[in-house]
Amino acid sequence: MKEILVFGHKNPDTDSICSSLVQASIDNRTNMPAKAMRLGNINKETKFVLDYLGMQAPELLTNLEEGQKVIMVDHNEFGQSAEGIQKAKILEVIDHHRISNFETSEPLFYTTRPYGCTSTILYEEFKRRPSLQKISKEEAALMLSAIISDTLLFKSPTCTKYDIRVVEELANISGIKDFKTYGMDMLKAGTALDDLSEAELINLDAKSLEKNGLTYKIAQVNTVDIPSVMKRQTNIEKEMQAEIKNKGIDLFVFAITDIVNGNSEIIALGERTDIIEKTCNLVNHTAFLEGVVSRKKQLIPMIDNNM
Amino acid sequence: MKEILVFGHKNPDTDSICSSLVQASIDNRTNMPAKAMRLGNINKETKFVLDYLGMQAPELLTNLEEGQKVIMVDHNEFGQSAEGIQKAKILEVIDHHRISNFETSEPLFYTTRPYGCTSTILYEEFKRRPSLQKISKEEAALMLSAIISDTLLFKSPTCTKYDIRVVEELANISGIKDFKTYGMDMLKAGTALDDLSEAELINLDAKSLEKNGLTYKIAQVNTVDIPSVMKRQTNIEKEMQAEIKNKGIDLFVFAITDIVNGNSEIIALGERTDIIEKTCNLVNHTAFLEGVVSRKKQLIPMIDNNM
Repeated sequence: MKEILVFGHKNPDTDSICSSLVQASIDNRTNMPAKAMRLGNINKETKFVLDYLGMQAPELLTNLEEGQKVIMVDHNEFGQSAEGIQKAKILEVIDHHRISNFETSEPLFYTTRPYGCTSTILYEEFKRRPSLQKISKEEAALMLSAIISDTLLFKSPTCTKYDIRVVEELANISGIKDFKTYGMDMLKAGTALDDLSEAELINLDAKSLEKNGLTYKIAQVNTVDIPSVMKRQTNIEKEMQAEIKNKGIDLFVFAITDIVNGNSEIIALGERTDIIEKTCNLVNHTAFLEGVVSRKKQLIPMIDNNM
Repeated sequence: MKEILVFGHKNPDTDSICSSLVQASIDNRTNMPAKAMRLGNINKETKFVLDYLGMQAPELLTNLEEGQKVIMVDHNEFGQSAEGIQKAKILEVIDHHRISNFETSEPLFYTTRPYGCTSTILYEEFKRRPSLQKISKEEAALMLSAIISDTLLFKSPTCTKYDIRVVEELANISGIKDFKTYGMDMLKAGTALDDLSEAELINLDAKSLEKNGLTYKIAQVNTVDIPSVMKRQTNIEKEMQAEIKNKGIDLFVFAITDIVNGNSEIIALGERTDIIEKTCNLVNHTAFLEGVVSRKKQLIPMIDNNM
């Protein structure tokens, strides 16, 4: 029997990698041979987590064969998934995003919850299925890291009370008692942007979306120093414009998020920046968005509700 | 606070009605004021269940106001849902169908399982949330009826081992120990078709679907006597043709399902009957499909996989 492949979205973030590893681990416990995969390079924040645990990154997945059994975590939109996803057999989806551009011809297991992180749903699965053995230290550390990453250590408006409670419980199980220090170190590890090219910056954590015929892309980087990124605005815009042209993007938003203070500066380019200007003034293609840190809960609805 | 409205699909079947009632009951227990609604007339099978329990049918829902909080059960496709669903706030979906033509701008609770019936998922919820009190006799009878209806007393290929186990447990809780006799009486109550007009017949349990630009409709009636329905073929076809013309349907399949022997006779009309002919020969617009009883697991894939 061929293994089930478990993977998160393209441009994988810490949740996509950690939740794939934990979900594969859950499946293997229940006699469903499964293997975590990744759809792109590991970012520095995730590398921090894997190094801390002495773990290898999952293998790179480039293309799915027809009929391959898969489990999608942390995403549902086909545009964010593996090449060949339309011809794969999707057994299960575990996700915490809106549902869009997803369809199957047969029923499946599909679990979405409006929590801050996919790993919070996996934790709930552990609690609800007494047939699973106890959560291992490693699984707990992976889930804890994913939740701290997705919620920006509870600063994001996507963070729920349940996410916080789960992190507190996972801190005990994993032995990472001082999860705040660990979490801030992990987030800071992801903000080392200086040695990345502008092309890499705008694709480090980027999502391409489609709605009502509009193609838009929202890229996001975390930092502790917005001005040091904005110094590179001219070159960043050059790369953004090149992608807009090459990929036919109508609106490209690049968000530079200050993880300490919880704000974002955005650069918006493309034919349809008018959508952004319904909410804020763009000056020299930029705007400072106080209290905005979440792509899912703040930036995407800002576009979806104004198109 | 305005109540949350809970409803199943248009042309409601027993699962849509019973699962709405049980889900509303679950929500009310957990301090979320909720009310079951229906999107159309109650069929005779469902009437049998409500009469048995001495219960009223839910109120008819004709149109949703913008921002109304809703829970969708037993369906997800907007085309099968209430008028105004696009502008409603969908809090939760509990369903056992494929996912198609569904999207939201924000994350939500979404639970789909490949079980035979929505009520099987609700039963699992009861088991998994110890905070819910015990299942009442009435709730058990509603769920049992829904599962027997959707699985045609376990004859449908959509029926899983888990559905059967759940019915056996619900039989104990509900006090309907002889659930097989009860179930066959219920199914037979739904097969009294003689006093229905042909227009009513083809809309008694009908689903309109869309895929790849194709608009198709699959209607189904249960019977213990296929020939008595086929006697009316000429008039049934007249009504089908009228709908094809009025609603721009590319393919209309009307299935007459023998619930005792587990077969179906179909009548297929429209511009795209070639899709059906990839699987079977149509003679005088009809074909006998041995062992075919499930729209979801057999008829819909027969179309989807051949378009």
